Amino acid sequence: MKKSLIALAILAAAGSASAQSSVTLFGIVDATLAYGRASGTGNASRWQLTNSGYNSSRIGFRGVEDLGGGMAAEFWLEAGLANDDGQGAATNTNNTATGAGAAVAGRQGLTFNRRSTVALKGGWGELRLGRDYSPQFWNLAVFDPFGYNGVGTTALQTGITGVTQVRASNSIGYFLPANLRGFYGQVAFYMGEQLNNAVAGGIRTDSDGDGIGVRVGYASGPFNVAVALSRTEYGAGDVKQNNIGGQWDFGVARLMGHAAWDKNGNIDGRGWLIGALVPMGPGEIRVSYSAYRTEVAGPDPRVRKIALGYVHNLSKRTALYTTYAHARNSNGNAVVLNGALLGVGGSRNSSGLDLGIRHSF
Amino acid sequence: MKKSLIALAILAAAGSASAQSSVTLFGIVDATLAYGRASGTGNASRWQLTNSGYNSSRIGFRGVEDLGGGMAAEFWLEAGLANDDGQGAATNTNNTATGAGAAVAGRQGLTFNRRSTVALKGGWGELRLGRDYSPQFWNLAVFDPFGYNGVGTTALQTGITGVTQVRASNSIGYFLPANLRGFYGQVAFYMGEQLNNAVAGGIRTDSDGDGIGVRVGYASGPFNVAVALSRTEYGAGDVKQNNIGGQWDFGVARLMGHAAWDKNGNIDGRGWLIGALVPMGPGEIRVSYSAYRTEVAGPDPRVRKIALGYVHNLSKRTALYTTYAHARNSNGNAVVLNGALLGVGGSRNSSGLDLGIRHSF
Amino acid sequence: MKKSLIALAILAAAGSASAQSSVTLFGIVDATLAYGRASGTGNASRWQLTNSGYNSSRIGFRGVEDLGGGMAAEFWLEAGLANDDGQGAATNTNNTATGAGAAVAGRQGLTFNRRSTVALKGGWGELRLGRDYSPQFWNLAVFDPFGYNGVGTTALQTGITGVTQVRASNSIGYFLPANLRGFYGQVAFYMGEQLNNAVAGGIRTDSDGDGIGVRVGYASGPFNVAVALSRTEYGAGDVKQNNIGGQWDFGVARLMGHAAWDKNGNIDGRGWLIGALVPMGPGEIRVSYSAYRTEVAGPDPRVRKIALGYVHNLSKRTALYTTYAHARNSNGNAVVLNGALLGVGGSRNSSGLDLGIRHSF
Repeated sequence: MKKSLIALAILAAAGSASAQSSVTLFGIVDATLAYGRASGTGNASRWQLTNSGYNSSRIGFRGVEDLGGGMAAEFWLEAGLANDDGQGAATNTNNTATGAGAAVAGRQGLTFNRRSTVALKGGWGELRLGRDYSPQFWNLAVFDPFGYNGVGTTALQTGITGVTQVRASNSIGYFLPANLRGFYGQVAFYMGEQLNNAVAGGIRTDSDGDGIGVRVGYASGPFNVAVALSRTEYGAGDVKQNNIGGQWDFGVARLMGHAAWDKNGNIDGRGWLIGALVPMGPGEIRVSYSAYRTEVAGPDPRVRKIALGYVHNLSKRTALYTTYAHARNSNGNAVVLNGALLGVGGSRNSSGLDLGIRHSF
Repeated sequence: MKKSLIALAILAAAGSASAQSSVTLFGIVDATLAYGRASGTGNASRWQLTNSGYNSSRIGFRGVEDLGGGMAAEFWLEAGLANDDGQGAATNTNNTATGAGAAVAGRQGLTFNRRSTVALKGGWGELRLGRDYSPQFWNLAVFDPFGYNGVGTTALQTGITGVTQVRASNSIGYFLPANLRGFYGQVAFYMGEQLNNAVAGGIRTDSDGDGIGVRVGYASGPFNVAVALSRTEYGAGDVKQNNIGGQWDFGVARLMGHAAWDKNGNIDGRGWLIGALVPMGPGEIRVSYSAYRTEVAGPDPRVRKIALGYVHNLSKRTALYTTYAHARNSNGNAVVLNGALLGVGGSRNSSGLDLGIRHSF
Repeated sequence: MKKSLIALAILAAAGSASAQSSVTLFGIVDATLAYGRASGTGNASRWQLTNSGYNSSRIGFRGVEDLGGGMAAEFWLEAGLANDDGQGAATNTNNTATGAGAAVAGRQGLTFNRRSTVALKGGWGELRLGRDYSPQFWNLAVFDPFGYNGVGTTALQTGITGVTQVRASNSIGYFLPANLRGFYGQVAFYMGEQLNNAVAGGIRTDSDGDGIGVRVGYASGPFNVAVALSRTEYGAGDVKQNNIGGQWDFGVARLMGHAAWDKNGNIDGRGWLIGALVPMGPGEIRVSYSAYRTEVAGPDPRVRKIALGYVHNLSKRTALYTTYAHARNSNGNAVVLNGALLGVGGSRNSSGLDLGIRHSF
């Protein structure tokens, strides 16, 4: 997602011993004309000009300083961007519900919610501090033909995995070095920053928002597979997000899939996806089928989703795209696509269409 | 307003086929010492160090990618800036009153409220998506010697034209190509993004914030004229903002004027301005007389305003300026300048003085 | 604090007569693993991944335009940054309590709260407009081995000096030119921007937030000394912040100290610090002892603090650091370090440890 960066030419820093340092300004502006509709009594459809239908809109600054001896320091500041109206995006300060306040329309300024890190790198790997993706996020995006964006992604079918599903603040991450014969991995400890005697409603909350995630994988030629396990602690019940994913690139198509087993307190969730990316001249066709099931007393709420899309690359940086998706809920599940309103009763289906342009810099 | 940009030297994007791409960091920092006073019992004056007395303070990022075949992709992200205290500026998410929440002092972060667009350009013109100026805005700024800024502008004499008076979010704009023998034009459709069954207080609001604006003009040598028409839909009453403006550059002076006919529900507004820009060595004198009248039952509230100013250019990027303006209200109108407080009764006049520096980069 | 900047290579501005202009993107990302504990019944400790333990995290844009004839125009926009979670920092609009609203967790966008100025410079000195450091701030940071950051600084031992303690908005500052044989100085007038008849609770508040600060100093070889006086007006009682500081660089160590005498309405405060910076190979040891006393009826609340730290420079831009500090309160004083919770009764001590990395660009 961050391949097409523009590197700004940098003069040597005054007095700096390093000749290989750089600062990069980068970003994506992705505008999406989106339509969503849903079934049921009192249902409603909606047209929107929204954003991030193919890749997440963002603006960021990053840089590397060569420290010599194979060591480097790196910073990465990346802000989410709602380019349909110009707002930024909020972050979360402590990996719990209290770390994210209520929105005020039109007033959300830029925060480096997507990533805000400083790191030391060497032959031993990388130590990275700040707000970063959680290890348990990656398989859901890398092994979904629609990534984590737009009407096609399976990722938003459930919220069971909570506020650290994608990113965590106050994170201390370690990454294995490259060149381990295809093996890769990372682990992150993230902190809720509670007082050590914190209690709420008679429940100890001193570990709320503390967590650990680990991801290990192996990639070789056309093959790539990874597994991730995580636990975020809450007095009211820990959240566990676990998944495995993989892909095989056959040339004519890249097949991929993932399976997820999550736990929110004593509620379990199970999901899976199969999909493919099929190159077509300067573009590619994207297709997936996915499902998610929440295990409760009585019939399990469940959603099944099919998505089909096409991306047309005008250049490496600029693409036109369209995606259609249809979601079918059962047993009270309430997934709804592209801002439609699900009515009462009936088949509880929702479908949506994205049509957009993604430009990166 | 965006002529004096600094282009950052860009290295070729890794893997990019384009050799003519660029990213530009640009902005304006305009600081204004402003004084305002007003008449009436209980009136009050105020001194402020404020901003944007000559040009609107801003910081932005924009870039163009050459796609080949006469095509280009462009992004433009531009944030408003209150450089007297460091705050950013809010935006509006859906072109209605619900799209802009209440301010919290000192906490407004940067949003790309001024412009946040991605566009495709070619010999056929330009298709632009995001938050942008509304077509009905331009005549009021281009054909006012004081633009849309500071104590001298006529623009703020009335709020009849509502939240899309200057900009609209969720906009899909089309611009005619250049080189049409002096003809130019643009049209914008902007979306309120309401649910298709939205109702409030028994009134259908499913189109609230949807709108269209169109502007066409002709410029040749010293001559420039343009007309703009618009309608923004609201269940409580549509807002229509229409205006025509023109200028003739006689060399010793550039004369300009505009006339406006607006409608807010069933209330009409009528305004006009005549003014001139007179070059004086490295600077220019600015002068205007303008009026605005709201048509209601009984005597029409009305304001007449005279403004006189001087801009002294220290360079193309840096200028010193001063502006004096006096506004006379009648029939209950309440225009007040530079943060003064209009008292009760009396002649209901207000006057203000700006003294400032504008630096662009 | 702003020495290691990266200068972006700039193309000549289109049409600009100046060949020596530049725009610089700069910043600091400082991540801190911080532990704090405190004494008393009900006390609590806290671990955090926080920021700015050595230098304040920030991102900024600044530039200089050569106007010819020894004159230059300069802008400086600098935003505070909480890189542990990605948030920005709030500012204050009018130098009073009403200029800073309540925080909403996770939603604080970037503001140029640290500095937001435009300036003209010449042989006569510099005139600077906007939000800037207050003159009365500098001695407390320059003459403290821990600057104004982290668990070691003495600066946060008291809040007596109010909202203009560090910075003021709406400021008009004048700086003496360099090369005055070692003498330097600045004066700032800052404005509260109140209506001239403002009253609250029967007290005139029309000058609330207005203020003046002045600082003069002399530096020569190893010697540096400066004194600062200030007054910020409030109807409820003016705030006066005054201090003197100095240092002598003996080569093997740089000794420094400051004394402060402040007044908040009719409450006086007295503080002092002695400390040293001791070079150690590629790093330096930092040590200080400081005290602050508030003069009230009865025994004076008082805090004494000792701090010891080490900074290890990996390069001019990147450093690892650690600091330990211990504060002892008496007579009801309540200084607490690194987010711990001071309990009831007991010795009312608090201690904290910082461990971090500072990377500048």
